[in-house]
Parts: sequence; C-alpha cells; structure tokens
Amino acid sequence: MEITSFSNPKIKLLRKLRDKKHRHENGLFYVEGLRIIGDALEHDAIFDAVYYCEDLLNSHFGEHLLKICEQRNIDMYHLPANVFGSFALKDHPQGIAAVLKMETYEEPKVIPEKRQIWVGLEAIADPGNLGTIFRTLDATAGSGVFLIGNCVDVYDPAVVRGSMGSFFTQPFYHMKAETLSIWKSKNNIHVIGTSDKAIKDYQEIEYPGQMILIMGSEREGLHPEIESLCDDIVSIPMSGFMDSLNLSVATSLMLYEIYNQHRKSGKVLGGRK
Amino acid sequence: MEITSFSNPKIKLLRKLRDKKHRHENGLFYVEGLRIIGDALEHDAIFDAVYYCEDLLNSHFGEHLLKICEQRNIDMYHLPANVFGSFALKDHPQGIAAVLKMETYEEPKVIPEKRQIWVGLEAIADPGNLGTIFRTLDATAGSGVFLIGNCVDVYDPAVVRGSMGSFFTQPFYHMKAETLSIWKSKNNIHVIGTSDKAIKDYQEIEYPGQMILIMGSEREGLHPEIESLCDDIVSIPMSGFMDSLNLSVATSLMLYEIYNQHRKSGKVLGGRK
Repeated sequence: MEITSFSNPKIKLLRKLRDKKHRHENGLFYVEGLRIIGDALEHDAIFDAVYYCEDLLNSHFGEHLLKICEQRNIDMYHLPANVFGSFALKDHPQGIAAVLKMETYEEPKVIPEKRQIWVGLEAIADPGNLGTIFRTLDATAGSGVFLIGNCVDVYDPAVVRGSMGSFFTQPFYHMKAETLSIWKSKNNIHVIGTSDKAIKDYQEIEYPGQMILIMGSEREGLHPEIESLCDDIVSIPMSGFMDSLNLSVATSLMLYEIYNQHRKSGKVLGGRK
Repeated sequence: MEITSFSNPKIKLLRKLRDKKHRHENGLFYVEGLRIIGDALEHDAIFDAVYYCEDLLNSHFGEHLLKICEQRNIDMYHLPANVFGSFALKDHPQGIAAVLKMETYEEPKVIPEKRQIWVGLEAIADPGNLGTIFRTLDATAGSGVFLIGNCVDVYDPAVVRGSMGSFFTQPFYHMKAETLSIWKSKNNIHVIGTSDKAIKDYQEIEYPGQMILIMGSEREGLHPEIESLCDDIVSIPMSGFMDSLNLSVATSLMLYEIYNQHRKSGKVLGGRK
C-alpha cells in the first residue's frame, strides 16, 4: 500500500511513538534501520507494520528484508522520501522502519541445574547504557533483565539501537524492590550487588551458576532497600582520579567476570568459536 | 562583567563552538555543568573564560567554583537566563559553562621500569564511546590515548561529558598509522590488538607492563595496516546471538584484564582503597 500524505493517521502515529506516553498507550514501539529490522525478523518480534521508501532503500539486504516481510504477511507501506523523513530519527535514514508490538514476558522461571544469570538494574536513566547492557548480557549468555523502580523506558529507540539486536534475545521484567524480594525468597536465588564502598574485590568471590547481579543507578548507586536484598556486595577496584565507571562498563565487567569463572569451571560453553 | 545581548561576539562564539570547524579554528572548546568545570579546575585545564547565570546556578558548589575562578583571575561573564539558554546544551542547564583552550601534549615518553598502558583507537566514531574509554583508562591507571586516523573530534562536548572529568587526566595524541609504526619501533613497545577473528582468548596471554592496546572502529574493526603493527591479537569470547560488543565495553574489558593481571603481579597498586 502507498501513503503519500504527511497527515495520514499512520504517519502521525509514527511521529507520536517518539513519546513514551504514546508508545505505552498504543502498546507499540518504533524501530528504524536495516540491521535492527533484520534482527527483529530473525528473532520473531511481533510486527504491526513496516514502512519503507524505495528511493532511500537501495541495498540488496533491504530488498531481502522486504521479501521476508511479504512472506510473513506483515502490513507494508510504501512512502515517498519526504514522508519517510518526517518521522525518521536518523539524518540519513536507510529507508526502512517498523512498528512493533510490545511483548510481556512471563515471570522468569528458575530451572534446576541450568546456568541462569539475570541483571537487575535499579532506576537506570541512560538509554544507551541500557542498550549496551542488553548487548553484553547476550554475549555472556544471560537470562534476562530486571528493571527495578523508575527506569528509562525500555522501548526508547536509543535502547533498542544500543542493544544492536539483543533487545530481541533477552527478556525483561519490570519489578518493584518488594516483588524482587519475594521472587528471590521463593526461588532461593543468590543476589550480588556492586558498590564502590564494598570491601570485597569483584574477583575475590566465586559466583554461583544461578544469580541476579544488581547494579545501582548512574547517579545514586545502590539504594539501601536494594542493598539489603544482596547476599554479597563487591567493588571493582580503580586506581585513577575519578570515582566511578560508566554503568554499562561496570555491569559488563561484572558479567564477564561471572562468565569467565563459569567458562573455566565448565558451567558455560566457551563461546561460539 | 555582564553580557545581556544574544548577539555579543562572545555569545556568538559559544554557539559556534558546537561545530568542530570553529573549535579548531579558534583552538577553543566548550564545556558545561558543575561537575565538568570542577574537574577542569582541579586538573588545571586552561580557561579562556567562564560564563554563569546566578538565577540558574543556585548551589553551594556553584558558588565555590566561581570563587576559585575569581582567585585564578579567569575572565568571568554574568548572563541572564535567556542568554545562557541560547548556547547551553542541556535542556535544564546548571548555569555554569566555560570555554577552555585546546592543549597539545608532547610526544609520549616511555619511562623504563614504569607501568605504561596506552590505548590506540582507530577511527572511533562515537563520542560517547570515546568519553567512556577515557574514563576506564583513568580508572586502570592508563597513560593516554592514541587517536589513529579519522576519529570523532576529541573536543566534542559529548566526549568531554562522557569522560566525566578523565578528559583532563589522560593525555591524547593524534597519530597516523605510519607515525605509530615509527614510534613503536623507536621505543620497542609491545602492541596488542583485538579482533573477533583472533584465536587466542584475551585471558590466555600475559600482558607486558608497557604496551599499546589497539582497538578497531565500531563498524570496521581493525584495519589491515594497523593489524600488521600488532605483536599479538586476541579475542573476547562471546556466547550469544550477537557478533560484537560495544566498543567502549570491549576496550574496558581489555583494560581491566591488563590491570587485573598487573595488580596481581604487583606491577600496579591495587586501587585507592
């Protein structure tokens, strides 16, 4: 189908999806670009519709993606470049965008004997950090993300973009601190937090095969209520002038320490190579 | 001094400093916010001038910073909120900004017996990644950054902001691949690169106390010309669906592996605690 009008309700909706409020009212979110849409198709995200502009989309990979969309009977809209540009986030858009349906994941299940590593993020504010943490969690064979308290919207386009596709491979769960506390007790799961005030070095302890790694927010660190859930608190040593690491870096260092320990003890296969 | 006009040449310059071209023509760059200006003062950055708005700057720390600027005879300009807002980068600016002079660092010196770890970044494109790498390099007691080839402007406000002050503690050097090659030979410095195609695990090798860690760009990885400079190439294992890590994460994992090895062998003091 073709849309040529800027004021078509579907085009208006695309622009509205920049706002968290409209995303959640509609249960929809917006993604843009060849790679993300390729990943969304590969990992079976639920498509509401695909929007494309042939003049901008001059690549074989783009044509390949459109064919898959056709085969899957996804609603497809063809637009002129100026209409596409009216909602595109990039200055030089690749000519393909999609509206996806939000998914709700069932409560995470603890499976005996299986390695399961979750990350719990408290009040994370930066969408780039959240996307990057999804990406490292995928790389280290993680099991999902708990979003605790007032976090940045997980459907923010910068989260999806920063995750480089791992947004579609890692389930996520919104949880209050109380709910997490109940879930932890019910499943008897080990919780490990990090704090620059902790005395234990992050390389000193042995990480269990099932656990939640809890990270505090960029500004405030671990909240006392969350800290009290932790069975252990460790710190990442630093020798410079600054007093903290970037949150996605600190989380990645922790995830790789856990992953490296588990690779060596045979709890996880050592990469895809 | 007070400036009330939007078209004052100094105010016009502040807006112009958003562009790389104007920054380098003037040898000046722009920073904004309490924390960055505090760090710039602490680490003796060279100030051209400070701009503040008392209505926006309602904090003791802000007043403290202004006092230091006065003591150091830094040119200070007082502005109304609307003029300040005309160049501020943040939506809710903290009411203090500064123009700093670019510094050129002398060629890095190799000091016998001293632990010296440099990071060489080839064609890094994302300012947030570059800032984050400065931050981790500071944390791991690094010696500076080589910017190889066509990199993002190191004076981009997003680099300085992302570095959280470590911009002022880590020297940086622009180098062509050829220059780096000459410098490496002259100083007999070990160069270690990373590539997802490398067979050696990044935890398998022993890192020397003086070395350059080379990281390829976000999109292209290591260029063959740079790869040929490397004495060793290692990879960071991954077990997920995605094929790469965020560049600042990958660099930080490498820097911490080097740092952790050196902490354990006594080459570096184990943090400030």
